Amino acid sequence: MSGSGVTDERGVSRRGLIGGSAAVAGVAAGAFAAGRASAADGAARSGSDDAFAFRGPHQAGITTPAQDRLHFAAFDVTTSSRAQLVALLKAWTRAADRMTRGLPAGEVGPTEGPATVPPDDTGEAIGLPSSGLTITVGFGPSLFRDAAGRDRFGLADRQPTALRPLPHFPGDALDPQRSGGDLCVQACADDPQVAVHAIRNLARIGFGTVAVRWSQLGFGRTSTTSTQQSTPRNLFGFKDGTANIKAEEKDAVAEHVWVGADDDPGAGWLAGGSYLVARRINMTIEVWDRQPLGDQEAFVGRTKDTGAPLSGGHEFSGPDFSMPGSDGPVIPRDAHVRVVHPDLNGGARMLRRGYNFVDGSDPLGGLDAGLFFVAFVRDPDTHFVPIQLRMAKVDALMEYLKVTGSALFAVPPGIGPGEYVGQALFERT
Amino acid sequence: MSGSGVTDERGVSRRGLIGGSAAVAGVAAGAFAAGRASAADGAARSGSDDAFAFRGPHQAGITTPAQDRLHFAAFDVTTSSRAQLVALLKAWTRAADRMTRGLPAGEVGPTEGPATVPPDDTGEAIGLPSSGLTITVGFGPSLFRDAAGRDRFGLADRQPTALRPLPHFPGDALDPQRSGGDLCVQACADDPQVAVHAIRNLARIGFGTVAVRWSQLGFGRTSTTSTQQSTPRNLFGFKDGTANIKAEEKDAVAEHVWVGADDDPGAGWLAGGSYLVARRINMTIEVWDRQPLGDQEAFVGRTKDTGAPLSGGHEFSGPDFSMPGSDGPVIPRDAHVRVVHPDLNGGARMLRRGYNFVDGSDPLGGLDAGLFFVAFVRDPDTHFVPIQLRMAKVDALMEYLKVTGSALFAVPPGIGPGEYVGQALFERT
Repeated sequence: MSGSGVTDERGVSRRGLIGGSAAVAGVAAGAFAAGRASAADGAARSGSDDAFAFRGPHQAGITTPAQDRLHFAAFDVTTSSRAQLVALLKAWTRAADRMTRGLPAGEVGPTEGPATVPPDDTGEAIGLPSSGLTITVGFGPSLFRDAAGRDRFGLADRQPTALRPLPHFPGDALDPQRSGGDLCVQACADDPQVAVHAIRNLARIGFGTVAVRWSQLGFGRTSTTSTQQSTPRNLFGFKDGTANIKAEEKDAVAEHVWVGADDDPGAGWLAGGSYLVARRINMTIEVWDRQPLGDQEAFVGRTKDTGAPLSGGHEFSGPDFSMPGSDGPVIPRDAHVRVVHPDLNGGARMLRRGYNFVDGSDPLGGLDAGLFFVAFVRDPDTHFVPIQLRMAKVDALMEYLKVTGSALFAVPPGIGPGEYVGQALFERT
Repeated sequence: MSGSGVTDERGVSRRGLIGGSAAVAGVAAGAFAAGRASAADGAARSGSDDAFAFRGPHQAGITTPAQDRLHFAAFDVTTSSRAQLVALLKAWTRAADRMTRGLPAGEVGPTEGPATVPPDDTGEAIGLPSSGLTITVGFGPSLFRDAAGRDRFGLADRQPTALRPLPHFPGDALDPQRSGGDLCVQACADDPQVAVHAIRNLARIGFGTVAVRWSQLGFGRTSTTSTQQSTPRNLFGFKDGTANIKAEEKDAVAEHVWVGADDDPGAGWLAGGSYLVARRINMTIEVWDRQPLGDQEAFVGRTKDTGAPLSGGHEFSGPDFSMPGSDGPVIPRDAHVRVVHPDLNGGARMLRRGYNFVDGSDPLGGLDAGLFFVAFVRDPDTHFVPIQLRMAKVDALMEYLKVTGSALFAVPPGIGPGEYVGQALFERT
């Protein structure tokens, strides 16, 4: 076990607590901030020197190579002042821009300010590298029109057509305390402490304007968003995300992820953005673990070992849905891979960025565990709702799933120089 | 961003999913298992090739250099059969021995067995390296005598004197669903998926004999147990564990951590073991974040920046409790560092292995966050209870803490060749 050693760190601000890893920042964008811990500080368990710019044509954290850890939070806006809401988004933009560079949330920092005022950063990320942090902000339907139909912020006429609460799906057992929200922030990083630090500081900055409605930690990514990443496993023990849209598939990203300029004439501000679907999917893993291997593979439609379709080949081989087996097709009609396959869903694909979660235990002696499903799509009405409906009705996996949280957010496009996140929604041109 | 690449992994069992890190296994003990992912597979975000033997004179996971991630579970024994309980401990020993080597929980593995039976490993750790996994087993007071006073397993006459439920401390707001337990398993690893996999498979193996009572994930270690580790930060943003017992302090470990052969004549089986104190300590971080820096430092008694005592020096300088300040001593009388200091507590020290946690949000719009405190002590009556009482009554930090879970376990000594964990308790010699 290695470490950066015990040293006197006085005067060596933001360095050396946990050194950077030896990871190569091959596709990292954005400048490296001064003062951040560097790889030379020693080997580390987690974290990295990767840095992804908060500003750009699209928000980061969508096609960015999926980081290992997630902290996701949904917020209720507790003010009815549009000016306060805009001020919050400006403050979040400043802080997010800094934190994604590995800097403290505020300009003074966690330890440098006067003793008489609270620090403008909470301090638990002192010395941690940028760790590939991305911060992605979204707007929920209730920001435009709340449950009582009120247009609190004068935004109702700009609500995107597709931005409305998801329908109730068969199998949904939603906890309202884990669903919905006026705003969301997805923080992904290679070090969970960096992701938690980001959410915590945005919540701190928002005190008096927003309150956390729900939040979710994810410890293991279940998707790949780059051909440079290998496919991880979900808590069913299967590879997950093999057929995911990868950032390198430029045409597919343009077709299935980003909202087009003409998609929704009433919500032109969303062009270049996306929709974020969040679903907290509990898995009854204790029951799953007692199913024979052959049944598990039949439910999924892939082998557990390599992830190849049951029709043969390797992980990335296309499934042959017509290949006969001993009793019907070799990939059963209710197999997950068949039910959600684009060929059987009008060609619709999603960019998924889900994470495994375990949130303690349930009252029955099982683990409160599963998949926090996150997907980015161009239009939930064509790219999520029909597929989810089909899955809820047909998919063999549904017997082992219970959806306990659900939310939909419109993710505004990227933030240009001098802009704040979501500016085009608030400032009509 | 690097990755091990997308390859056809058929036939390359347990390799390449996520490659090993470049971490140096400087103090790793135990043989490296064949077939494990190796550092040559590519850079990884987490995980490592560190391996710590499950067998040895003491259980691993105590003086082992603290890993980055935790999954801790407490179990209720649901049978009253002593034979079943012993069979479980034997099965857990076999599985733990394997998993700490980076092998599947069972001999057949997650994908190699016949299609007609459930796999003997759940599969989500396929390809992940051993990641420094340690598995530490403990016995709660209720294993010896349950809440109704029943001696279910014929163990009551061997109950250690100090193994009884912790007293109620001022400030405790305990949730019974997060407290107690007949058995506990602490799984620590550098990759959370490896720690979760270990707990999940032990729970699976225990189906019908035990049920999970509560479980807790921790994402950031808050202690160092080796002088080779740098001091991490808790969610107050302060360095935590500076004065912790380090494995290299052999005399201190012998004096304060391991139960001596003559400590408890009625419980000789515990010699070479320890007591594990677990406390789930919620921090009201939103309130903390609004306190001036000077107040935060006065509450802790150290600077936020370097962790030096307020009396000066560097992180590892001894605090000078008599040094005068502008208003009383420079380290206030209620400062945490003073209240818990060994000099003021009869010299008692603990070996702490705590972790930061965030478990979503609370109903008030705050994060359900804090410190999952774990400490190993030779005797809770001298090394924990008096210090906790003093802290609960005096410590300035208590205003920002709420203890929501609590448990005490006796941790049997290490497991010799051919033995099972806790064997000396069950087999009288």
